Amino acid sequence: MDNRPIGLFDSGVGGLTVAKQVMKVLPHEDIVYFGDTARVPYGSKTKETVTKFSEQIIRFLLTKDVKAIIIACNTASANSYHDLIRTFPEMPIFEVITAGVESCIAATKNKKVGITGTQATVRSGAYELGIKQRVPDMRIYAQACPLFVNLAEEGWTDNEVARLTAHIYLDDMLAQGVDTIVLGCTHYPLLKRCISGVVGEKVTLVDPAKATALKMKKFLEQNDMLSDTEEGRNTFYVSDHTPSFDNLCERLLKTHYTAEKIDIEKY
Amino acid sequence: MDNRPIGLFDSGVGGLTVAKQVMKVLPHEDIVYFGDTARVPYGSKTKETVTKFSEQIIRFLLTKDVKAIIIACNTASANSYHDLIRTFPEMPIFEVITAGVESCIAATKNKKVGITGTQATVRSGAYELGIKQRVPDMRIYAQACPLFVNLAEEGWTDNEVARLTAHIYLDDMLAQGVDTIVLGCTHYPLLKRCISGVVGEKVTLVDPAKATALKMKKFLEQNDMLSDTEEGRNTFYVSDHTPSFDNLCERLLKTHYTAEKIDIEKY
Repeated sequence: MDNRPIGLFDSGVGGLTVAKQVMKVLPHEDIVYFGDTARVPYGSKTKETVTKFSEQIIRFLLTKDVKAIIIACNTASANSYHDLIRTFPEMPIFEVITAGVESCIAATKNKKVGITGTQATVRSGAYELGIKQRVPDMRIYAQACPLFVNLAEEGWTDNEVARLTAHIYLDDMLAQGVDTIVLGCTHYPLLKRCISGVVGEKVTLVDPAKATALKMKKFLEQNDMLSDTEEGRNTFYVSDHTPSFDNLCERLLKTHYTAEKIDIEKY
Repeated sequence: MDNRPIGLFDSGVGGLTVAKQVMKVLPHEDIVYFGDTARVPYGSKTKETVTKFSEQIIRFLLTKDVKAIIIACNTASANSYHDLIRTFPEMPIFEVITAGVESCIAATKNKKVGITGTQATVRSGAYELGIKQRVPDMRIYAQACPLFVNLAEEGWTDNEVARLTAHIYLDDMLAQGVDTIVLGCTHYPLLKRCISGVVGEKVTLVDPAKATALKMKKFLEQNDMLSDTEEGRNTFYVSDHTPSFDNLCERLLKTHYTAEKIDIEKY
């Protein structure tokens, strides 16, 4: 039994889609979420910068006595995970790529899959590597979809601009016959309805969030680290008080949370 | 005579549109440019955070012995200028809003003008205030156009998504009969052709960059601070080595510059 909180972090508010799944799957756990709203987005930045920012955030989460951490951001998972587990060897750290890889492999029937993500995630090749290690003959089509993040933040999740943008990004992989597409950025599930409309019913969209939450649950069970509190408390921290956090909290979690601002550059 | 460089900074690479005008108008001046590519964009962030980032950058520019500074970013100009001149009272600091206000007033014939910019620029009301102080009966229609930045960075400067987005943002102010629109973000001139097509020939688009460069020239002349070097040297610094800097340098300045990376959080 371990009643310390689980830490989650993201470049901004997209990781709330992962936090939501953790709350569902692990309702007794306390959660500490950090969103780097002062420096968002990470997807257009280099591995070196994303790793430095992630290290600062983990040092902050350590001050909150977390028992495990989920990198609720595909860009940081894809670019910085290996560095982070070396820098913080004592801390159990989970990323979202592995769950996405496994869900994608489970879903495809024709072994043709599409990977979407930020420029930094696609450039890292993390999804391809994870898939090829398990299924060497998988055909993989990767496409960076940077505007999806901005459309989600603008609230244009299902208008004509979003549909046209989805066509530009996805038509090529659809023409190649993919039957599964990984939503490899925590913002993209916010556009799920629009993307579904563009790719059609026969294509499965994979969101790694739920599978990631289930991995955390299994880890806590196996290590006797589940919390026994009646109801988990959720605490939120941000690096800037932008409207995006409040907006997405209301939209996604159907409730209002107050986030405390942290000077993350000090960590 | 003063051969020290002029400092320019922006949240990222958009300020290169201002640097280009300074190079044209003041070809003998040395320029030191800083682009905050690790923390770009500023337009979705709060005044407090934008001011803090701008102060760090000015402290860095001071180490380069600049004789004057241009805030080549509408968001920082609109939100942080007054704080910055108080924090650095010895340093001549110029912003881009005043030049935009004056150019806009000079251009309109029907006294109906549109202001475009980031969320933070529009929220600040800086353009409205500047215009109303000079022409109290001007009719002003302001619209935040956050996706324009992302479209410019994605290189989608003249496709159907850009056109549709411009229509969504600008149709209301066009229906109000504006004859002048200020491009109140240094990224927006990159979409000028597309925006021109949407607003039509009868609407004047105002880019504050050239007028800002002319203001700097006048200041240097009046204070006998012009440089007498034969050809100005341009030096570039960034907080992250992202591809966006190289891409825009090539596209805009038609040449390749190497930018040095700086850990701006230390300043």
